Amino acid sequence: MEQILEMARRAKRTASILANLPSLKRKAALLRIAENLERRENEIVAANEKDVEEGKKKKLSPAMIDRLILDSERIASMASGIREIAEQPDPVGEVVKMWTRPNGLLVGKMRIPLGVVGIIYESRPNVTADAAALCLKSGNAVLLRGGSEALESNLAIGRIIQGSLNEEGIPEEAVQVIPVADRKAILEMVHLEAYLDLIIPRGGEGLIRFVVENSRVPVIKHYKGVCHVFVDASADLEMAENICVNAKVQRPGVCNAMETLLVHEGVADEFLPRMVKKFGELGVEVRGCPKTRAIVGREVALASEEDWSMEYLDLILSVKVVGGLEEAISHIETYGSSHTESIVTRDYANAQAFLKRVHSSVVLVNASTRFSDGQQLGLGAEIGISTTKLHAFGPMGAEDLTTTKFIIFGEGQVRT
Amino acid sequence: MEQILEMARRAKRTASILANLPSLKRKAALLRIAENLERRENEIVAANEKDVEEGKKKKLSPAMIDRLILDSERIASMASGIREIAEQPDPVGEVVKMWTRPNGLLVGKMRIPLGVVGIIYESRPNVTADAAALCLKSGNAVLLRGGSEALESNLAIGRIIQGSLNEEGIPEEAVQVIPVADRKAILEMVHLEAYLDLIIPRGGEGLIRFVVENSRVPVIKHYKGVCHVFVDASADLEMAENICVNAKVQRPGVCNAMETLLVHEGVADEFLPRMVKKFGELGVEVRGCPKTRAIVGREVALASEEDWSMEYLDLILSVKVVGGLEEAISHIETYGSSHTESIVTRDYANAQAFLKRVHSSVVLVNASTRFSDGQQLGLGAEIGISTTKLHAFGPMGAEDLTTTKFIIFGEGQVRT
Repeated sequence: MEQILEMARRAKRTASILANLPSLKRKAALLRIAENLERRENEIVAANEKDVEEGKKKKLSPAMIDRLILDSERIASMASGIREIAEQPDPVGEVVKMWTRPNGLLVGKMRIPLGVVGIIYESRPNVTADAAALCLKSGNAVLLRGGSEALESNLAIGRIIQGSLNEEGIPEEAVQVIPVADRKAILEMVHLEAYLDLIIPRGGEGLIRFVVENSRVPVIKHYKGVCHVFVDASADLEMAENICVNAKVQRPGVCNAMETLLVHEGVADEFLPRMVKKFGELGVEVRGCPKTRAIVGREVALASEEDWSMEYLDLILSVKVVGGLEEAISHIETYGSSHTESIVTRDYANAQAFLKRVHSSVVLVNASTRFSDGQQLGLGAEIGISTTKLHAFGPMGAEDLTTTKFIIFGEGQVRT
Repeated sequence: MEQILEMARRAKRTASILANLPSLKRKAALLRIAENLERRENEIVAANEKDVEEGKKKKLSPAMIDRLILDSERIASMASGIREIAEQPDPVGEVVKMWTRPNGLLVGKMRIPLGVVGIIYESRPNVTADAAALCLKSGNAVLLRGGSEALESNLAIGRIIQGSLNEEGIPEEAVQVIPVADRKAILEMVHLEAYLDLIIPRGGEGLIRFVVENSRVPVIKHYKGVCHVFVDASADLEMAENICVNAKVQRPGVCNAMETLLVHEGVADEFLPRMVKKFGELGVEVRGCPKTRAIVGREVALASEEDWSMEYLDLILSVKVVGGLEEAISHIETYGSSHTESIVTRDYANAQAFLKRVHSSVVLVNASTRFSDGQQLGLGAEIGISTTKLHAFGPMGAEDLTTTKFIIFGEGQVRT
């Protein structure tokens, strides 16, 4: 794997050039990439067709094939995402704080790029463009290692990005797609601690565990989301129903969808029958605690102990009746994955207590868990949703691909 | 090592209590600890005498014995450090940003504790008190594993801290000193990824490498400091001399002392003879590049290639004449350790370029490298100086022991 080592070396050399590139130049490159992705659409589609054909031969599931496909519309959407990133404020060079010390030293903290970022992902080829754009925006060089199913598509997108960088006079080594897609390539990457500053694995639990267990490079994990909605006694029940439907049904296969509904016992008799009926109409399978079944009837399956920590990623929902805020919080602490939780309430104190005391990466009052997303929160595109607390917690945008250095203006001060 | 696992379990249980403890209660506990450390001074001194006696038997060097000793003055200084931490603003609960989305969602980022922090350190027992105080300040539980030479002292300090927590009604498991000091205890700690959120190793390179190579818990490294001062052509030479003397001589054994002096060729003839003479008077051994020797004479030893990346931690200095700012920056990039660098200049453009383009954790203009220190920069006590970019870079205070979660106030918003 001499090849991957050599790519990493080049990325590191390029990183120090990128770190000092003016904001305007990085912006111009992003706009150029968006333009060229649309202009050279045919190239991408042709490469993608090879991947899709190969995928069908390998009998990938229709869902996987769907995630793999790049058509005109999806390419336009990639380009428009990159244009949005280009228009965002530049995180690099931002001084986040500045203060004066008693001895007159003026001390500030300035954002700088991390250096070289490695992204390890699975099937969706649009990640190649998104991740490259976010890294370029934040002044980082990036090594991209996508899934084998999408190799041709990823390489085509990579070629177009490198061509665009060339046109703008930026070294093309800023964005490199690794042309090998087996696990050995991952193993090689995670051992390059001398060249990589961060690795972000995006994909199934197996992939993430493999990276965490083998990596010498720091890793930001993106594990599962077992997200909760707690309907408090004082909730506006129509609002609660809207939020629950949106959180469960709008896109059940993603990590910010609701997996467990907690209902205050004071409102369960009124809320649960209408909510479970609605879920039935929408094709959602409900698995309830004994109290839930006592209220809505035995046609609802009994939730097992395992159900409370399941990430279904499907039209399945576990439902529990709780005694109040305390029990709701303690259930979330015990079974949750620190991803995203929402309370529906009209009670001021409960809203504040929930926000303060639930230490998941995103905590909402009276809003759908589906907002736990970089784009929705205003970060622009996201590089992922971190479920570990170090460096970044929750949806990560370009700013989270930077760190800060201290800058100090003196007039000859020495320490006594 | 069932014992360490059990301690980690207790720490994790306590962490969720600590995270919700009001600021005033944490402050009261810190003040109580400071008071009790002074009141029970005799207990600490008695335990410390055992360590010192044992150390002398083991023939530790006088320098090591000196770092080990706790006397009345050093205990008072520990207590006063903790009082300072108590008076600092509370990082927990700070909302660092807040904005409104087009759909009316009010989105903020709020600081929360990391959870459980593990500190692995070597001989100095005052680290026990400092680290415990910073973790308590930031709402984290902490597991402390100090060096075997200081075990009795560390345990005595730990008992006093736990007694103080008890008096304030805070679970004593918030601060636990591991009563085992061999490497096996470290190995056990770094495998407890289910309980620990962060490990900070402080000590020699061997210890740090051991932790990094074995840890499944995220690690923030505190590696060496190969710090530079660059004396530009336009420098005020008296200021430059003061800064160089301070950076090299005031405390040569620490990571923010200058190890390499870079001098602009335009000023080398004037500056180097007086500077090298001064260093001679102060007992500093100079190792110079050929140009330096051509100016100040052959009595200065020739610096070898290895000298440029040496962290001497001693009264030794390498000196190089450079063509200008570009060569200075490129030398720092090649041989430095991204720790701390300073430029002495009267030139506005060079000052700004140096600040912007040098990506070390602390970059100074016209000030001594010795200011690269949490206390000196106004962070209060420091938990260490991070030399890796993830999560924290440079001196780390209590704020760096927190992360942020998203808090979102809605009015029933759902995603479309």
